[in-house]
Amino acid sequence: MADLGLFRDPASVAVVGASDDRGKWGYWLARGALSGRHRRKVYLVNRSTGSVQGESTYPDVASLPEPPELLVLCVPPAFVEGVVDEALALGVRAFLGITAGISDEARFGAKIRAAGARILGPNSLGLYDATSQLQLAWGHFTPGSLAIVSQSGQLGSEIANMSARVGLGVSRFVSVGNQLDVRAADLLEDLLDHEASSLVALYLESFTDGPRLVEVLRRLRAAGKPTVVLTTGASEGSQRLAQSHTGSLTSALDTVDAACRAAGAIRVATPTELVDVARCLAVSARPAGRRVAVVSDSGGQGGIAADVAAAHGLSTPVFSPQLQERLAALLPASAAVTNPVDLAGAGEADLHTYAALSELLMDSGEADVVLLSGYLGCYGEDNPATERAELAVVDRLGSAVASAGVPLLVHSMSPNSPAVGRMWNRGIPAFAAIESVMGAIANTAALTEWPGRKFATPAGAPLTVQPGYWSARDVLTRIGISAPAGRRVDSPEQLAAAFAELTPPLVLKAGWLEHKSESGGVKLGLRTAAELAAAYEDMTVRLGAGEYVVEEQDTRPDVVEMLVGGRRDRDFGPLIAVGAGGTEAELYRDVCVELAPVDRPTAVDMISRLRCLPLLQGWRGRPPVDLAALADVVVAVSRAVAATAQIDDLEVNPLRVGPTGALAVDALILSTGETDEAA
Amino acid sequence: MADLGLFRDPASVAVVGASDDRGKWGYWLARGALSGRHRRKVYLVNRSTGSVQGESTYPDVASLPEPPELLVLCVPPAFVEGVVDEALALGVRAFLGITAGISDEARFGAKIRAAGARILGPNSLGLYDATSQLQLAWGHFTPGSLAIVSQSGQLGSEIANMSARVGLGVSRFVSVGNQLDVRAADLLEDLLDHEASSLVALYLESFTDGPRLVEVLRRLRAAGKPTVVLTTGASEGSQRLAQSHTGSLTSALDTVDAACRAAGAIRVATPTELVDVARCLAVSARPAGRRVAVVSDSGGQGGIAADVAAAHGLSTPVFSPQLQERLAALLPASAAVTNPVDLAGAGEADLHTYAALSELLMDSGEADVVLLSGYLGCYGEDNPATERAELAVVDRLGSAVASAGVPLLVHSMSPNSPAVGRMWNRGIPAFAAIESVMGAIANTAALTEWPGRKFATPAGAPLTVQPGYWSARDVLTRIGISAPAGRRVDSPEQLAAAFAELTPPLVLKAGWLEHKSESGGVKLGLRTAAELAAAYEDMTVRLGAGEYVVEEQDTRPDVVEMLVGGRRDRDFGPLIAVGAGGTEAELYRDVCVELAPVDRPTAVDMISRLRCLPLLQGWRGRPPVDLAALADVVVAVSRAVAATAQIDDLEVNPLRVGPTGALAVDALILSTGETDEAA
Repeated sequence: MADLGLFRDPASVAVVGASDDRGKWGYWLARGALSGRHRRKVYLVNRSTGSVQGESTYPDVASLPEPPELLVLCVPPAFVEGVVDEALALGVRAFLGITAGISDEARFGAKIRAAGARILGPNSLGLYDATSQLQLAWGHFTPGSLAIVSQSGQLGSEIANMSARVGLGVSRFVSVGNQLDVRAADLLEDLLDHEASSLVALYLESFTDGPRLVEVLRRLRAAGKPTVVLTTGASEGSQRLAQSHTGSLTSALDTVDAACRAAGAIRVATPTELVDVARCLAVSARPAGRRVAVVSDSGGQGGIAADVAAAHGLSTPVFSPQLQERLAALLPASAAVTNPVDLAGAGEADLHTYAALSELLMDSGEADVVLLSGYLGCYGEDNPATERAELAVVDRLGSAVASAGVPLLVHSMSPNSPAVGRMWNRGIPAFAAIESVMGAIANTAALTEWPGRKFATPAGAPLTVQPGYWSARDVLTRIGISAPAGRRVDSPEQLAAAFAELTPPLVLKAGWLEHKSESGGVKLGLRTAAELAAAYEDMTVRLGAGEYVVEEQDTRPDVVEMLVGGRRDRDFGPLIAVGAGGTEAELYRDVCVELAPVDRPTAVDMISRLRCLPLLQGWRGRPPVDLAALADVVVAVSRAVAATAQIDDLEVNPLRVGPTGALAVDALILSTGETDEAA
Repeated sequence: MADLGLFRDPASVAVVGASDDRGKWGYWLARGALSGRHRRKVYLVNRSTGSVQGESTYPDVASLPEPPELLVLCVPPAFVEGVVDEALALGVRAFLGITAGISDEARFGAKIRAAGARILGPNSLGLYDATSQLQLAWGHFTPGSLAIVSQSGQLGSEIANMSARVGLGVSRFVSVGNQLDVRAADLLEDLLDHEASSLVALYLESFTDGPRLVEVLRRLRAAGKPTVVLTTGASEGSQRLAQSHTGSLTSALDTVDAACRAAGAIRVATPTELVDVARCLAVSARPAGRRVAVVSDSGGQGGIAADVAAAHGLSTPVFSPQLQERLAALLPASAAVTNPVDLAGAGEADLHTYAALSELLMDSGEADVVLLSGYLGCYGEDNPATERAELAVVDRLGSAVASAGVPLLVHSMSPNSPAVGRMWNRGIPAFAAIESVMGAIANTAALTEWPGRKFATPAGAPLTVQPGYWSARDVLTRIGISAPAGRRVDSPEQLAAAFAELTPPLVLKAGWLEHKSESGGVKLGLRTAAELAAAYEDMTVRLGAGEYVVEEQDTRPDVVEMLVGGRRDRDFGPLIAVGAGGTEAELYRDVCVELAPVDRPTAVDMISRLRCLPLLQGWRGRPPVDLAALADVVVAVSRAVAATAQIDDLEVNPLRVGPTGALAVDALILSTGETDEAA
């Protein structure tokens, strides 16, 4: 197969369908191709005119003096196949498919691959590479360090344009189009050794390469190139669109988020959020945590900054008395020094106060990020006499940032001033909107929290999954999860024997039913042999014969009901979820999902992210529950679902977790129908 | 007292402390004052130089040829009182206090008021009025229709600057400073007849004038001038700052939100959000609801738009088959027409497609807002040959908007193009960030949903509030809330009598305890006289003598436990809350608060905003509960707390609501210690 390098720096390019009409794609592709002619041969092909954009053209591919290394398809759909046939015959091995609406794409792609050639697209908006000065795309590009790989060409353009407006710029841009052959994961992998790219923006609508994408993003992260992921699927509207648009069902967002955490990538919701965080990653150190020191020359702006920080899951913790004392020494008596710091006029009195405070805070060990909010960046504009001093302060801040390794961000009321421009050059991202700052801090902090993790499929003993609750109990026991003592019963005699062996109160369950409670297939609180017999009689009359189970009822006090579930996602494979039991999980969505398997620390982390955590830690004077036992169940279920291709869904609900351990009092396992290869 | 008109359009102004130094406030105040000298007399006062900014100055106030109608205090704090004494003696009746740090402000303010004069500030950043060309403030102002009243001068400036950058502009700007005399509510009231002001931005940190503010904002709204409120207090950090900064405790945000809903105002969290919504209010009709029709020339951008809409509580509902058919007739077969609409190339093929689709959607009755997202606004920039056509489309869209009354918003990839400029002039706000669009739509929709409401204090019968549960039951009964049948018991004999009269199971409560359950002061499920007697014996031994209450236990099936509470807020007065009972209210903050009293529709609306609403509507096949009975309890508690100054806090928790009605099974009333004047 042809190398992806042909899409990076081909020695020659032909644009078939080159045009003089600025309203046509052929114009932009030809113009872009010609801008790189000092580095490579550029051939323009147009069957009806002798010259385009002042360059002479070739009437068809066969007339070209050599087979181009990369051929751009920019002709109407009906002509595409003819051009490709001609080109393959000449030995062309790489195609960029701009044209959309090609009929029978699958056959078309198979033909290209059969010839050992590759195609990017079709329905691609094009590609750009700043290093090789390859521009084969609609639009304008500013060189920089952000690589963009996008399933929507125009959304990729929006990111590229926004990035250029704030001075970031693009190292590489690839619109993957319909991914007939070359896929997003291939292009991401190709960025691993693309030196100019120091961070990656990825827009995807479908994740059919799920596990491979996770692994490639993890490797990019390990190579020092973090990825910011943008996707849709948060709303019914976008899901409808994704289905009608690409034929692929949008993956659920919580699963994408789990995949991003596993990959060490960040997911954002909009292009603006993406560019905000990319700006920070491009020039700034990453915060070690979520503690923000806010310094403002306005109490109002400092307060808003603290509120917006909290809304983004960041904290503005009170400084230590020692630090407060040192801050106070630099400020007038009316200043606030707890965090936020309110300068109370000290900034305008001496501009170097900004720098002195920032240095103190960066060195304090009490802040993971320092934010200056307000008037800095405006001084020189309002009063030219202060311009030089303001730039000197920015330089001093830049030096402090470089030596401290603690990121410094600025929210400035004058986002386009020369002082703000200087900040960017000194590694200090400055923003016009306080929510941009806090969003970017929260997202870069998330990157620190999720360094990515390697997956090893656990080599569990093969499990045989049979329908019904009795078999589910068996699976739980084999993977180390406790269930109450119980007996399978088929007759009144077995029922009596079970009563003799178990300690009441007992529970009788119609074990073969998927929704036992809703169907009247569960009877709790059976204390006597007579009660048990009556319940059995009643249930067999109503529900008929089947696999009945008698269990000891869990009557331990101070128990919290949780759910733990593992399932197999079509795109990303095995997943593990833990959440509040009962209605809370549904009404309040108090569930946390990760790719399976998870280890103990990841399980503990999942539990710690639940909003019901206080319930588990000893609610209102109750003793705390056995969190370790809960984490063990999460780990065990995650390993089982990852190890056993037979399990489609394994849900323990409720798992009753008390101070003395966790007990699975109901469980359901659905089988995929597959058998384990290992078995 | 002097008229506030002196702060709007004084016939003469004196700036005391005028300066040539651009780094000093006296420079900006003098410069601003001079810019209005064609409309009014401007006197500059400086005791040490004969001229400032090319104008001759007066050495002191006594030397002025006339007492100025408005005098600006811009001298160091130690000199302020001397200047004011001199000015009052001359007959000056209005002061703008820029200077901060005046000692003994209270005495200083009293002196001014005693002379029949008024002061705005001190610690004000200044004021500006576009109509009267009065500029007495630091900074630059662009005339427009937004009035800004701000407790933080710099935050007010940030809003003014942002507003100018997007072409909105300011009609009036008032930095209220320390509000020694003239207060924010006064200045808001003064906007009622300020013709140039068509909408209001209000930043406040404290709400000590709560009820008056609500009433003034409601009147502004009724006068067609909606207010957008920005405040702090969402985080511990901002609360600390507000305390140290102004000495006033920040009001809780949920209370501020309730006040805004009652006033028909909108609360936002950042200056950017404020300006985004202000732009829409300034030029666009208000949406009648939350249904957004999304039209994009990119499937990716349409999907992101739908997701961001959902995140802002907006919907992108599927269009009717009829509308889909009409949309499809304008678009190629590959286009999506359900909502979002994906143009699939039809926009670039014919720019008027944007207008035709928009007209169809605006007239359909199926959308409250139409959003165009993507490339519109970029055509003319990328291809000058299309510039004229693009502007024509914008004009056509403008006409459609004017006749349909349905707002049209644009998210454009080229936010500064001439086409986007034309949109603004044709009543079509355009934004660079999709989250700005959706935030603005959500906020303007909220304005429609909350038109403001007038309060009438209910004339309830006077209530006597005594400590203890038995008295609380009595209050509940008197305001029409049902409680279980019960008896007060003081002795074993009374206990036996109660058992004879009531239907078990019974509950025994130590009625005088505030936290009965936590103190072992509640015993449930007492079925026999012996069980009741034993429980009484046990409780009296443990807790001693006191007001014991025996009640029938509510054993109705399919009951949902809720809480309903009324309390008195220091700033805003009576409040009413309804929420999920148990841990949900605390862990998941599933509570809704409004200013009390509320009527039935408002109570129903509060309940409908709870996330536990599905539990009430018939969860998983259970019968729905009696929502009307729940709403009645909300109304009754809200009226009681509003009518009776004695009640500081009245909490019914839990209120057990089932299919057959609502029963208060525990309640607590805390008294303010006041007596009702009506009693």
